[in-house]
Amino acid sequence: MPDHRIPPLQSSLPGPPPAPVPATGTVPVDMSVPVDTSVPDPGAGGALERILRGPSGLGTEGLHFARYEKPPAPSEPETAEPETAAEGNPIPGLYYHPIPEPDPARVEEVSRRIKAWAVDEAQVYPPEWEDQFDGFSVGRYMVACHPDAPTIDHLMIATRLMVAENAVDDCYCEDHGGSPIGLGSRLLLAHTALDPLHTTEEYEPAWLESLQSDAPRRAYRSAMAYFLETATASQADRYRHDMGRLHLGYLAEAAWAQTDHIPEVWEYLAMRQFNNFRPCPTITDTVGGYELPADLHAQPAMQRVIALAGNATTIVNDLYSYTKELKSPGTHLNLPVVIAEREGLSEKDAYLKAVEVHNDLMHRFEAEAAALATDCPVPTVLRFLRGVAVWVDGNHYWHQTNTYRYSLPDFW
Amino acid sequence: MPDHRIPPLQSSLPGPPPAPVPATGTVPVDMSVPVDTSVPDPGAGGALERILRGPSGLGTEGLHFARYEKPPAPSEPETAEPETAAEGNPIPGLYYHPIPEPDPARVEEVSRRIKAWAVDEAQVYPPEWEDQFDGFSVGRYMVACHPDAPTIDHLMIATRLMVAENAVDDCYCEDHGGSPIGLGSRLLLAHTALDPLHTTEEYEPAWLESLQSDAPRRAYRSAMAYFLETATASQADRYRHDMGRLHLGYLAEAAWAQTDHIPEVWEYLAMRQFNNFRPCPTITDTVGGYELPADLHAQPAMQRVIALAGNATTIVNDLYSYTKELKSPGTHLNLPVVIAEREGLSEKDAYLKAVEVHNDLMHRFEAEAAALATDCPVPTVLRFLRGVAVWVDGNHYWHQTNTYRYSLPDFW
Repeated sequence: MPDHRIPPLQSSLPGPPPAPVPATGTVPVDMSVPVDTSVPDPGAGGALERILRGPSGLGTEGLHFARYEKPPAPSEPETAEPETAAEGNPIPGLYYHPIPEPDPARVEEVSRRIKAWAVDEAQVYPPEWEDQFDGFSVGRYMVACHPDAPTIDHLMIATRLMVAENAVDDCYCEDHGGSPIGLGSRLLLAHTALDPLHTTEEYEPAWLESLQSDAPRRAYRSAMAYFLETATASQADRYRHDMGRLHLGYLAEAAWAQTDHIPEVWEYLAMRQFNNFRPCPTITDTVGGYELPADLHAQPAMQRVIALAGNATTIVNDLYSYTKELKSPGTHLNLPVVIAEREGLSEKDAYLKAVEVHNDLMHRFEAEAAALATDCPVPTVLRFLRGVAVWVDGNHYWHQTNTYRYSLPDFW
Repeated sequence: MPDHRIPPLQSSLPGPPPAPVPATGTVPVDMSVPVDTSVPDPGAGGALERILRGPSGLGTEGLHFARYEKPPAPSEPETAEPETAAEGNPIPGLYYHPIPEPDPARVEEVSRRIKAWAVDEAQVYPPEWEDQFDGFSVGRYMVACHPDAPTIDHLMIATRLMVAENAVDDCYCEDHGGSPIGLGSRLLLAHTALDPLHTTEEYEPAWLESLQSDAPRRAYRSAMAYFLETATASQADRYRHDMGRLHLGYLAEAAWAQTDHIPEVWEYLAMRQFNNFRPCPTITDTVGGYELPADLHAQPAMQRVIALAGNATTIVNDLYSYTKELKSPGTHLNLPVVIAEREGLSEKDAYLKAVEVHNDLMHRFEAEAAALATDCPVPTVLRFLRGVAVWVDGNHYWHQTNTYRYSLPDFW
């Protein structure tokens, strides 16, 4: 998973809790935030694209599906001031769309419920990490990304899965006990919490017991059980597939880490298409209370849109977490680091090139989404495309405003 | 993948061809073959189950869909002599269904075409390995598993994919240059031949070029391109998902190999549900020229049937390749070996217990398939269930008759 980790509880890996970090709410609001300083792609900037993306007024106003059906007034959010200035600075030159602040009442309620789930119900985090869990702001993240969720229960589906995905990444792959050694086994056994084992009577109990044996599996199992209460069978199959992709991505990254190998740029981008946010935007319909039919989801044009959107959001993570990852021990691969190494560029030039790669992916995503909306103007397709676009925008908002985790390099 | 490997061509790993092995056709027919000495599960042995499985006369007689619609005469293939005695002995006590010899004309034509594809078109194997390629009998395998394929072209879809899957397993995972080190990277990059990269104009050409750079990727890319000519978008999505599972399974097995770890029996069975034949039976509808709708494929009951069938076929592989794997260097995990180690049983008792595990999986598969057929008697569901069952039987036939690769231990 992209890097926005919080330290989880691992029954098998006890350790002292880290020092608390200030909650995001304590960071002063920076009203000088520049907005979208990049040049929009003229080929992808039509009215249809804006309809897909929705007006910048989405968010608290976009909570009901009916609102999505009203044609939004033409707007150019990429050149307008955001309605509510967010904390943190966006990356200069980054092509993105600002969003209004997510509904504070929803954020508060989701934050309250997710803490209860993570601490008490699924036991993903110990109570003493409460402050840090708050600082992660996963409630704000998911409310920003799913403005059309009909209820808090729907938002909770996405929020639990996001926390579970992070727990697996943290405990198995990254700093909190993770390692490339044995990762293939850990991830597969955790994957059976999503995609169950079908075996004989004798061996089933030990497997079922294993799903409670550490924080990642408890989190996956519980979050998946809630997801299955609302998702259709095809939506569940889609999610399992996307999580299989994610786990393959982790394992490719781990293979390189184990041998200190720095891949070619295209190889890194291929890995990052799998180690990717994709499982998060692709549940937008379940969280929105509707279904993109399986046959439409599987269309190559839709698969391409989803992949491009996922890739853009994931490179956003590489860019915002760049300085944080530079500070961590060893070489942490991200797009600027790989470009610098493989193309012989300075850190600054490599970073700026990575911004361009991101912008290209965003423009491609928007152009392909607009083309698909024209070719297949089915309401669920249009709503799904808009849901993915809103997720992309909410994801950028969360990264930009996470000033307690992320800071920008001094390249401008 | 289960072990039925042939040495492929790797442009990056040249080496002398191995000594030729006798083709299967030279092995004398053993007419004393015992048939299904196990006790059928009384709960799963009803008429409906037999309808699902079809009469033992399937095979050349089952080439046309219309034939499937005729209710077969009640038969007990598990207690009858096979219509055509196969080479090789089945494992005593194994619950299985004999099949008639696959249509020799089809076998001959598929064998001819697959060699042309593998040697000349996709360059998976060098011409000097022709004899060994013939000995693998992949044409006979696929004709046995897909008796309802309407044309040779349909059979070729399955045959190319089977050869490609074996090339990846051989070159990346197993003896022919494979290693657990770096496997996560190799498998992910090969997976992009099935599930394409969506990236920027600058980096796309290097990725496209990579798909021609070794035998596994050439094989995946070409076999997938043919598959996509016939498969629907949802069938392609299903196949990608199953291949993602397969690659996760390879990586779990590699994680254990790297640390010489012998897993618990249930862990081994979980890994084997992923490192599994599953991608082969689940294309039965594409190869049969029809489609199991995505929403029906995703139903939990169907997913369970598919998983149980895949698990039974895969344990068949563990049992038939047992003596071969014992002879290979290092510890090659298979179910008897893991049971012996983890449950403190003798080699013989562990092997016999593994046979029971297989039989339990088969009975569960058949009982669940029969229940699903009752609950959802849609023609495509019934045909798909029968296609999976026929694949299971064809797979057993291929293992039993592969006397040039497999021999039974001396436990009876």
